[in-house]
Amino acid sequence: MTTYREAGVDIDAQDRALSAIKEMVRSTKTAGVLSELGSFGGLFDIGAAGVKRPVLVASADGVGTKLKVAFLAGRHDTVGRDLVHHCINDILVQGARPLFFLDYLATGRLDPGVVESVIRGVAGACADHGLALLGGETAEMPGFYAEGEYDLAGFIVGVADRRRILDGTAVAAGDVLVGLPSTGLHTNGYSLARRILFDRLGLAPEDTVEELGGTLGEELLKVHRCYLEAVWPLLDKDLVHAMAHITGGGLTDNLPRVLPEGLGAEIKVGAWEVPAIFRVLAQGGKVPEDDLWRTFNMGVGMVLIVAPKSLAKVLKILKKHGVPGFPMGNIAAGSGVTYHHPPEGYPTGLR
Amino acid sequence: MTTYREAGVDIDAQDRALSAIKEMVRSTKTAGVLSELGSFGGLFDIGAAGVKRPVLVASADGVGTKLKVAFLAGRHDTVGRDLVHHCINDILVQGARPLFFLDYLATGRLDPGVVESVIRGVAGACADHGLALLGGETAEMPGFYAEGEYDLAGFIVGVADRRRILDGTAVAAGDVLVGLPSTGLHTNGYSLARRILFDRLGLAPEDTVEELGGTLGEELLKVHRCYLEAVWPLLDKDLVHAMAHITGGGLTDNLPRVLPEGLGAEIKVGAWEVPAIFRVLAQGGKVPEDDLWRTFNMGVGMVLIVAPKSLAKVLKILKKHGVPGFPMGNIAAGSGVTYHHPPEGYPTGLR
Repeated sequence: MTTYREAGVDIDAQDRALSAIKEMVRSTKTAGVLSELGSFGGLFDIGAAGVKRPVLVASADGVGTKLKVAFLAGRHDTVGRDLVHHCINDILVQGARPLFFLDYLATGRLDPGVVESVIRGVAGACADHGLALLGGETAEMPGFYAEGEYDLAGFIVGVADRRRILDGTAVAAGDVLVGLPSTGLHTNGYSLARRILFDRLGLAPEDTVEELGGTLGEELLKVHRCYLEAVWPLLDKDLVHAMAHITGGGLTDNLPRVLPEGLGAEIKVGAWEVPAIFRVLAQGGKVPEDDLWRTFNMGVGMVLIVAPKSLAKVLKILKKHGVPGFPMGNIAAGSGVTYHHPPEGYPTGLR
Repeated sequence: MTTYREAGVDIDAQDRALSAIKEMVRSTKTAGVLSELGSFGGLFDIGAAGVKRPVLVASADGVGTKLKVAFLAGRHDTVGRDLVHHCINDILVQGARPLFFLDYLATGRLDPGVVESVIRGVAGACADHGLALLGGETAEMPGFYAEGEYDLAGFIVGVADRRRILDGTAVAAGDVLVGLPSTGLHTNGYSLARRILFDRLGLAPEDTVEELGGTLGEELLKVHRCYLEAVWPLLDKDLVHAMAHITGGGLTDNLPRVLPEGLGAEIKVGAWEVPAIFRVLAQGGKVPEDDLWRTFNMGVGMVLIVAPKSLAKVLKILKKHGVPGFPMGNIAAGSGVTYHHPPEGYPTGLR
């Protein structure tokens, strides 16, 4: 006799986890939500968004191998926040405000405690930033994931007014690049970081690293910063020409995605202090500088492109919202990203 | 010196795969799509849907362990279709028409050929059923997946007119259950099926099983049927009171999700012929009948609940669209699902 449970799928454990999740989902309910969890699909009344010519902006993403650090550290309540914040930033750069989120969590054998922690992170971030957790899938897939491991992906839908979508066409030569500080690696470059820190340097998450002012695990699990609240007032005042979320590919690959043909970004290396973790990685892994810029955010989680005349106002509003932006270069005729280094001896944190 | 490629992430291979994907994505473009792939988020003009009071209906799902069969058979172009069809059916049962889809594909080491096959399935299904593949994420996660394996999840957004959302309130005692035939297991019950067929019976995908009229692999990889085109004309004519997509949990768990308090479903076992694969599983695994009904769709991929006076018309329209629906029971006072067996000796395919 072969039952579903014997084959590795425990529907009752799923039901127990689902009941805890339902409570958390309820806490994310917003005006547009028309359905409770349990329907086949989640319902959202787009009219409730109050946008005149609504364009939906959607994105899918995962947490990547930052998850491995969470497994090693046995900490599961932060990766959900990473995912939601990453997705919010991805649609924010096109001028969209998030409406709702759905998650996909896949594991070999469902541990209700771990599932609850993960979803608590997802739901908590949704509640904090005003988007509804409209649905999701928790998949038990025997034989797919190592014991105690899982994968986590998310899907976000937001709305932008058609007249106010940021598509890069407003960018002009002479515009200023304003960097917004990241909290650390965010969710990119973890395969390389783990290789350097764990394999090459032989460190473990519980090790204290003096330059980092704490344990390595704490540093690597710092939550991906969400820029919604600091940036929205700028969008509302039409102060931003374009924005780039600095994710996989770093400044090198992400900035050109929002630049019109014929324009490039000139970056002043040394204009901001590269955080300690990137110096540890650069030196510990002897990583070539090109690879650093194309892999890590190097302390810049998002770049705003603004007119020179707006700069002071932009910096003031950002500061008021707790995000100390910094000018880090400008737009000029050309293409791609060019890094300008200060004279030898100037402390850039890279040499 | 440690580079990103050396750490197992090959951005150039990703770029090559992306270029093939772009072409396929373009083939799914619909009137609402405002962005090309490469933006941070995909843009969709909800006004283009032409719905008066638009409510968004969203769902997330995975393919589950049907993927293991695809790995064993070395066939990667069908699972994407399974995923898209599954998601379409999930929002169709609430009265929604699909607008767009996003995929999440995660693997240990990116094989551009496999990625292309998988996305070809996703994009092909999107093009066939008129929804846009608006974006997606292909994640290379060294150490997460066994060599040659991957996970695949999807996210769908559709639109329903607020006045025409199916929420089960229209269901009444005496209503008829109309079953729509499945093509086989669809995307549920594969962990149990693999246990029985591969582990217990020692079969392999390339083995021919006489009762199935072909190889086991062909049977198990049959594509999840999409009911959009057959069912939409019925919704357009307001002929359906409620619908249930029969996925994980079978008829037992899925039918009650659309029934109002105080009503249950009475199912006439024997009203349709249970396909051979389910008999093979029932007998080969000595699976208790309760487990069968709660794990597999047993030949019924979707159930429509319709008024008795509409039955003839409903069956006629379904047949016209190539889906031979069958009456399989009715709604009565009560709760949950009750299975009524015919007298001993009647060929139900279960004993």
